Amino acid sequence: MNKIKVGIIGATGYAGAELVRLLKQRDDVEIVGLGSRSYARTPFSNEYGALRDYEDGECCGEDMLEMSKNCDVIFTATPQGFCASQVTEEILSKCKIIDLSADFRITDPEIYEQWYKIHHPCPEFIKEAVYGLPEINRDKIKNARLIANPGCYPTCSFLSIYPLLKAGYIDPNTIIIDAKSGTSGAGRGAKTASLFCEVNESIKAYSVAAHRHVPEIEEQLSNIAGRDIRISFTPHLMPMQRGILVTAYASLAKSVTVEELHAAYEACYKDEHFVRVLPYGMPTETRWVRGSNLADVSCKLDERTNRVIMMGAIDNMVKGAAGQAIQNMNLMFGCPENKGIDQLPV
Amino acid sequence: MNKIKVGIIGATGYAGAELVRLLKQRDDVEIVGLGSRSYARTPFSNEYGALRDYEDGECCGEDMLEMSKNCDVIFTATPQGFCASQVTEEILSKCKIIDLSADFRITDPEIYEQWYKIHHPCPEFIKEAVYGLPEINRDKIKNARLIANPGCYPTCSFLSIYPLLKAGYIDPNTIIIDAKSGTSGAGRGAKTASLFCEVNESIKAYSVAAHRHVPEIEEQLSNIAGRDIRISFTPHLMPMQRGILVTAYASLAKSVTVEELHAAYEACYKDEHFVRVLPYGMPTETRWVRGSNLADVSCKLDERTNRVIMMGAIDNMVKGAAGQAIQNMNLMFGCPENKGIDQLPV
Amino acid sequence: MNKIKVGIIGATGYAGAELVRLLKQRDDVEIVGLGSRSYARTPFSNEYGALRDYEDGECCGEDMLEMSKNCDVIFTATPQGFCASQVTEEILSKCKIIDLSADFRITDPEIYEQWYKIHHPCPEFIKEAVYGLPEINRDKIKNARLIANPGCYPTCSFLSIYPLLKAGYIDPNTIIIDAKSGTSGAGRGAKTASLFCEVNESIKAYSVAAHRHVPEIEEQLSNIAGRDIRISFTPHLMPMQRGILVTAYASLAKSVTVEELHAAYEACYKDEHFVRVLPYGMPTETRWVRGSNLADVSCKLDERTNRVIMMGAIDNMVKGAAGQAIQNMNLMFGCPENKGIDQLPV
Amino acid sequence: MNKIKVGIIGATGYAGAELVRLLKQRDDVEIVGLGSRSYARTPFSNEYGALRDYEDGECCGEDMLEMSKNCDVIFTATPQGFCASQVTEEILSKCKIIDLSADFRITDPEIYEQWYKIHHPCPEFIKEAVYGLPEINRDKIKNARLIANPGCYPTCSFLSIYPLLKAGYIDPNTIIIDAKSGTSGAGRGAKTASLFCEVNESIKAYSVAAHRHVPEIEEQLSNIAGRDIRISFTPHLMPMQRGILVTAYASLAKSVTVEELHAAYEACYKDEHFVRVLPYGMPTETRWVRGSNLADVSCKLDERTNRVIMMGAIDNMVKGAAGQAIQNMNLMFGCPENKGIDQLPV
Repeated sequence: MNKIKVGIIGATGYAGAELVRLLKQRDDVEIVGLGSRSYARTPFSNEYGALRDYEDGECCGEDMLEMSKNCDVIFTATPQGFCASQVTEEILSKCKIIDLSADFRITDPEIYEQWYKIHHPCPEFIKEAVYGLPEINRDKIKNARLIANPGCYPTCSFLSIYPLLKAGYIDPNTIIIDAKSGTSGAGRGAKTASLFCEVNESIKAYSVAAHRHVPEIEEQLSNIAGRDIRISFTPHLMPMQRGILVTAYASLAKSVTVEELHAAYEACYKDEHFVRVLPYGMPTETRWVRGSNLADVSCKLDERTNRVIMMGAIDNMVKGAAGQAIQNMNLMFGCPENKGIDQLPV
Repeated sequence: MNKIKVGIIGATGYAGAELVRLLKQRDDVEIVGLGSRSYARTPFSNEYGALRDYEDGECCGEDMLEMSKNCDVIFTATPQGFCASQVTEEILSKCKIIDLSADFRITDPEIYEQWYKIHHPCPEFIKEAVYGLPEINRDKIKNARLIANPGCYPTCSFLSIYPLLKAGYIDPNTIIIDAKSGTSGAGRGAKTASLFCEVNESIKAYSVAAHRHVPEIEEQLSNIAGRDIRISFTPHLMPMQRGILVTAYASLAKSVTVEELHAAYEACYKDEHFVRVLPYGMPTETRWVRGSNLADVSCKLDERTNRVIMMGAIDNMVKGAAGQAIQNMNLMFGCPENKGIDQLPV
Repeated sequence: MNKIKVGIIGATGYAGAELVRLLKQRDDVEIVGLGSRSYARTPFSNEYGALRDYEDGECCGEDMLEMSKNCDVIFTATPQGFCASQVTEEILSKCKIIDLSADFRITDPEIYEQWYKIHHPCPEFIKEAVYGLPEINRDKIKNARLIANPGCYPTCSFLSIYPLLKAGYIDPNTIIIDAKSGTSGAGRGAKTASLFCEVNESIKAYSVAAHRHVPEIEEQLSNIAGRDIRISFTPHLMPMQRGILVTAYASLAKSVTVEELHAAYEACYKDEHFVRVLPYGMPTETRWVRGSNLADVSCKLDERTNRVIMMGAIDNMVKGAAGQAIQNMNLMFGCPENKGIDQLPV
Repeated sequence: MNKIKVGIIGATGYAGAELVRLLKQRDDVEIVGLGSRSYARTPFSNEYGALRDYEDGECCGEDMLEMSKNCDVIFTATPQGFCASQVTEEILSKCKIIDLSADFRITDPEIYEQWYKIHHPCPEFIKEAVYGLPEINRDKIKNARLIANPGCYPTCSFLSIYPLLKAGYIDPNTIIIDAKSGTSGAGRGAKTASLFCEVNESIKAYSVAAHRHVPEIEEQLSNIAGRDIRISFTPHLMPMQRGILVTAYASLAKSVTVEELHAAYEACYKDEHFVRVLPYGMPTETRWVRGSNLADVSCKLDERTNRVIMMGAIDNMVKGAAGQAIQNMNLMFGCPENKGIDQLPV
């Protein structure tokens, strides 16, 4: 059997290293390049002692064209703008790209530029790119050359809200998403705000009414609703490493029983390997998905206010990044969808 | 100078111990009784080594009448139902009571019984009791015999929302409160769910659409709005010890500028020693109030959805419990309101 | 292929649940019984939401004889005294036992009784039992009916010190072990001392000069040294969930170079799949083994004092408990030794 | 009353900010300068929201001569080498200096240069400087112009070992110190190794047999023993913010009872306001001193090995840095020694 030859650019960031961890446990994958701007020519295991004796190769630079010559697929776990600045038809003709940044998630380049303050250098590829959420785009992913791997908050928000929106049970104008993320979401950059002593024993909201994941969530929910939706979205920083919790609110659009609410979730996810619908009303907890590619979802009706609370939990590094990227790779290369990402939560 | 003689019932719980810590640093207060059901006849400092050499006295039982004979004021940091089951006219004629439980917070005993599942044995005292939030009831507190010390979530929720509700800027029907609390809020009871290994590195919502602080928040907000309000309220458990963060959402009731929003906060709190209005749009953080009696509040307008996000942070053990109780005591005994609770955040 | 039929007694404790997590990921193992004193007749996934949809079976009671009728092997992850009180020749003739408690770790029942304050009901099985540390007893384990799975501290302490003691480089009379453990080591019992608010943001020593793992460590080290050794051992409680770190000190017994020190580790562990010898002088870190069955070890010479510092790190729940137990099971059933416990650190 | 005019250089580091926090709560102190290399011309409360409304002044640069013109005392909470590079006779003739760095702690400049790899520019001031540990140098501190404020590890190590060494009960050649520190000890520099996701849920030793506090501890212990002592010292990084725990080992030098061991501690510290001797054998815990200037100490005899385990706990930011510096200031300015640093542990 030929192994899938994989390159990872941004390998020493948290999402990149998670890709390494998960892919090193497969016998059908060979990691042929670990690109890192900050740690080129340093052994990978210097930065990630967890991989000592498993991945002691040196990191290389971040030249996508060069890397594409030896790869079947390249993951880019890089800051916004990197992938769009490097990808070309030449590269895509040889090698599939799974981009973990936001470069190809937003259909309208103007909206991308407005929220990300970056000029998009190759809008022609946006159209080609497939939004890599298997639960809604499984078939398109299989044949894609370029995957826009979803953001962590959008993945968790969408999976939590999707069933009730699709069923027409909630008023799209009333959606409010209060989200909480572990600190790995802030990345491995050496910023004062991410120091242990600044983060531990404290919580805060950030990017209030201004977070870059807003247009991505809105676009995906609008696709389901069949019309433009605007949401309120507030992310919070949590004193933990991994995990995203979404608590979303919406007013009911019609009279509906709790059984119907729950049934909407079951209907959407009954065949999904990685989405677990919890019993009606049971809150999701990030610990129950930690280290796994699972998404837990549930809902509860607040009968006094006629609002429904939709809840979701994922590991932001796995289903919110590296795990979902591998799920996409599996679909693109004809592997079983859960291959190598079936670890149970730790 | 005569010292204020203080009794604390429930002294070995987290709120009770916080009362001890704060009151032991005053030279005008004498602690004459430390009531504890679980640790009667044990030295207090056995349970709280922080107080070794400062408070080594033995705990006594929880007989309020007995304790009232030697006290000017008794704090009850006890489970719901305890204070109401013990307080009598005889006690109140000798000794003031500051109850940190919910027994006297809800005006309507039927609502109390409905949410707390406890029959209220002395509704006649509910009428007399003053809701001990100095920012709105300062004058009444001064002359009260019986204080219903506010809940932690209600304190933080109310202070965050009050200015905009009072100004008529927000639609009372649209208020959603997403609150997050440190684990000390769960108390010192030996429950599996509060173990380090269950709480750390995880977050979850709990008591969704069913938390007992709902009617307390609604009553206080209704008083301001001049009509009955129903809110959605979702508390979350955080992997930290102290601190409550409130992120509240409401739709604007009228067109209003961000300057007007901010000015509403300034107007309410400009003379308040313990409430800090942060610059417009700056998120509150629990670490900046930790260990102090301060409440930080701020707001931000989401212009795309016409909603305002109201933010607040307190230390649930101080402004949310023991500190506010002492603030009430200071008012009742003619001390400077900030006496003994003016520590800066650690 | 016939699956190995496994029973787990004490399945809802932390070590028991770790067994479930690891064994559920194997296709050659069938869990046929989950014994739990506290949660009998409750679905396992009620307590461990991580396993929802994977292990929703109900727990049963803790009758070893009954369970042995359907099992090839039973793991007892139970308090001291349980396994010894239940095991019989009848059981052992049908079913192998891997005991994660200390009941069969100490050869001399008098020493067991002295440290554990429990009368040993079946000293005849102590002689038969094999101390389940594959790195020294691999061959004996393969044929054993009864395994005494090593303690977490002893595993990490022994693997750290073993190479230098075996090489005769250190003076056995000078060994001091300063050990630090995550809170999962304290178990899932609802004790006040294990609450999040008691453990977080604090560290302490405990059981100073009196911890029950002392005789176990001494016996194993004495076997290597060929004479009786007495050690000083101080465990500490850490504000983290998983992981044990050992920092051990000993004076050199002879003049030796740092290369020789390092070579002693390499010599012992060059063929060991689960022991990684770090570069000379590099401190071990618990995060690099978290969630894995790996043990990292290293040493550094303090030339100014002629002492050597020996360092080790394991995950107390995996190599220190469930993972090592499965490693033993693999040996006993002829599976590859690393089967199902080869996950990379998270 | 004239206020003490204080300047703080390095005010935005953790120790500097702790000085600000503690000194802002005094009415006899005026902070006239907040020097910060990184945040000059930024409001202090931008970095430390805890001080908002209390200290909103802008930081200035780090010119000690300039600052000394308006100050009675300057605290330097700066990296090694800064204070020694700036202090002059001109400055000291006007203004007292309390240096929280190591520049003047080591009597022999050669040893300083060997461990710190910095040439010492003004060895003439080393002789004048007083080692600011009030428990042994109280009288000298009162008249000093230049204080070498002790290191955090040395403070905790010394106070733990001092009584038994002074009493001649332990063999000075056998002292081993295993120390554990919260992450604030690593400072506020934006280093990858101090990020939340690198520190949380992990522990490690660092600077094994090579930490810069070794010569400082050795010098102070040698002074007590009356001869040169060499110790083994291993610091560890802990996933918590504040606190140092010392577990020290030594062999008994003579036959001694546990009562005598305990009495040695009582004899040394019976008049010390900030040192608490715990009951014999009771382990110290960092939480019981957190946020306070207290040091807790205790010991336990390991009769099986004839070694004594000496234990100590301090808050590294208070007794280990800012609190002790203020204790020194109090002595130098004739204030009560505990003024402004008498907060009880939080």
